[in-house]
Amino acid sequence: MEYCFGVDIGGTTVKFGLFSQKEGLLEKWEIPTKKGSEPTPLLKDIKVSIEECLSKNGLKKEDLAGIGMAAPGPVTEDGCLRGTVNIGWGDVFLGKKAEKLIGVSPVYIGNDARVAALGEYTFGAGKEVSSLLMVTLGTGVGGGVILNGKILSGASGTAGEIGHITMNLDEVEQCNCGKKGCLEQYASAPGMVRVAQKALMNTDKPSVLRNIEVLTAKKLWDAAKKGDALARELTEYISKILGVAIANACYIVDPEMIVLGGGVSQAGVFLLDMVQRAYVENVFPHCRDKKFALAKLLNDAGIYGAAAMVFKQ
Amino acid sequence: MEYCFGVDIGGTTVKFGLFSQKEGLLEKWEIPTKKGSEPTPLLKDIKVSIEECLSKNGLKKEDLAGIGMAAPGPVTEDGCLRGTVNIGWGDVFLGKKAEKLIGVSPVYIGNDARVAALGEYTFGAGKEVSSLLMVTLGTGVGGGVILNGKILSGASGTAGEIGHITMNLDEVEQCNCGKKGCLEQYASAPGMVRVAQKALMNTDKPSVLRNIEVLTAKKLWDAAKKGDALARELTEYISKILGVAIANACYIVDPEMIVLGGGVSQAGVFLLDMVQRAYVENVFPHCRDKKFALAKLLNDAGIYGAAAMVFKQ
Repeated sequence: MEYCFGVDIGGTTVKFGLFSQKEGLLEKWEIPTKKGSEPTPLLKDIKVSIEECLSKNGLKKEDLAGIGMAAPGPVTEDGCLRGTVNIGWGDVFLGKKAEKLIGVSPVYIGNDARVAALGEYTFGAGKEVSSLLMVTLGTGVGGGVILNGKILSGASGTAGEIGHITMNLDEVEQCNCGKKGCLEQYASAPGMVRVAQKALMNTDKPSVLRNIEVLTAKKLWDAAKKGDALARELTEYISKILGVAIANACYIVDPEMIVLGGGVSQAGVFLLDMVQRAYVENVFPHCRDKKFALAKLLNDAGIYGAAAMVFKQ
Repeated sequence: MEYCFGVDIGGTTVKFGLFSQKEGLLEKWEIPTKKGSEPTPLLKDIKVSIEECLSKNGLKKEDLAGIGMAAPGPVTEDGCLRGTVNIGWGDVFLGKKAEKLIGVSPVYIGNDARVAALGEYTFGAGKEVSSLLMVTLGTGVGGGVILNGKILSGASGTAGEIGHITMNLDEVEQCNCGKKGCLEQYASAPGMVRVAQKALMNTDKPSVLRNIEVLTAKKLWDAAKKGDALARELTEYISKILGVAIANACYIVDPEMIVLGGGVSQAGVFLLDMVQRAYVENVFPHCRDKKFALAKLLNDAGIYGAAAMVFKQ
């Protein structure tokens, strides 16, 4: 009983990891995500994939302490996955369903951003702290709060959703969630591009950004690193919004560490320093001394966190 | 061992309650707060007051399960009270100090707004829920988060400080905390007056508010209730900022219930409904169904919460 699977269900692929409690990640792979109105077909694919891995490694289902699963939707404390827009399911108790279908018990289920936060907490950037807030800067802005080794799920399964903190009551454009002024509209990869494109239209300042055919968040941060003045100004502005949003979250849960992850965070220490500086400049004194770190596990945070859900029980 | 004292140390008075585990609050009273650079003189006053009460009731220190204390400053999980500006103390482990001086153990210590939230959770508006966020609208805007019966203190003792969430990045005036744009600048009693006075200067709209010599938050809400159009507009504006700030907090901790307390909340259901409406209009779908309630214990929330700290252990 010292093995488990960590499974990270995404909109495009399902990532798998076989873990041993002693040696950590032994093997990882992925399969395409089967979409549909309910999860049975995808769970069958997961069952097949897991059984192949077990047999290849001379293991049996009885050798498993359980399976952890991350899914892209809010998950309540009692295990209800409340709709996964990207895949097409409605509300479902995915853990219970998976236990029956796969024939392994228990199956733990968590929101992907929260599970990634647990991964960083247990195996990555947060190994030395007792609480953290992870902020994931990607296609959206996700987040997760870990308090004393446990995911904070919340009454509706939405605790940690920092991406939808309102940062601008005067915003006129709409966020994917239907609201206006969400952090995500400024600090997700598409949000950063939106901010930059508006600025390029509203100013005559020279900038290498004007020569880029398809502007991306990566190109914006690269230009800022190389000293382009407008790109620098824009990344400072985005960092300020992000730093203030993190400060707002810290007034509420006050974690020991902030971890920045997701594709955009690969802008690295340059981005981390800029966001931390904005945080320190905009937070009240008692909260100033937070640790800031970049995520370490990158795309594997989900499978690591899913494994942690099993081994931490 | 079925008795305890709940002690709520404020800037002006110290409130006391004698509680029995079976019968609740038996007796309450208050004494003036002795200010100074350190807490010994005040703790001696508390000792005398508690001993008088015990002797009057034929009780001994051995009959006490402990003492709970609320104090106006951040308190870390390990019990460090980190400066109480209103009274004059620096960092102090007040519980340990009180145990020695008063000769009763244990003495639990918590931040006043957080302890009041625990009071409402245990004995007041939140008796039926498993988590809540309390927002206290008074001279400042305080707050507290209770998760599964426990105060969320946070790494720096500041978890729940919703009053300093930044609601306006373009604010030019300064909050008491030194930052600009804090919720407190709009939703504390003086903040509401500030908002109203600015509006009265910047518009020619007729309003009964113009005839009031010393404008207060109470008078603003009373005028809105009586149908004054400008007062109504202003309270709608304040409620929107408050509703969005509560939504921002809910994305992070996602509690089951929001409790509004503090002097301003005595505007009652009129205020509660307006804030809840603003919340619902400005929060994303998954979080919409929160319970909203007015605080029930009013000025006694602190002593009730302090007693709950003892009896909940």
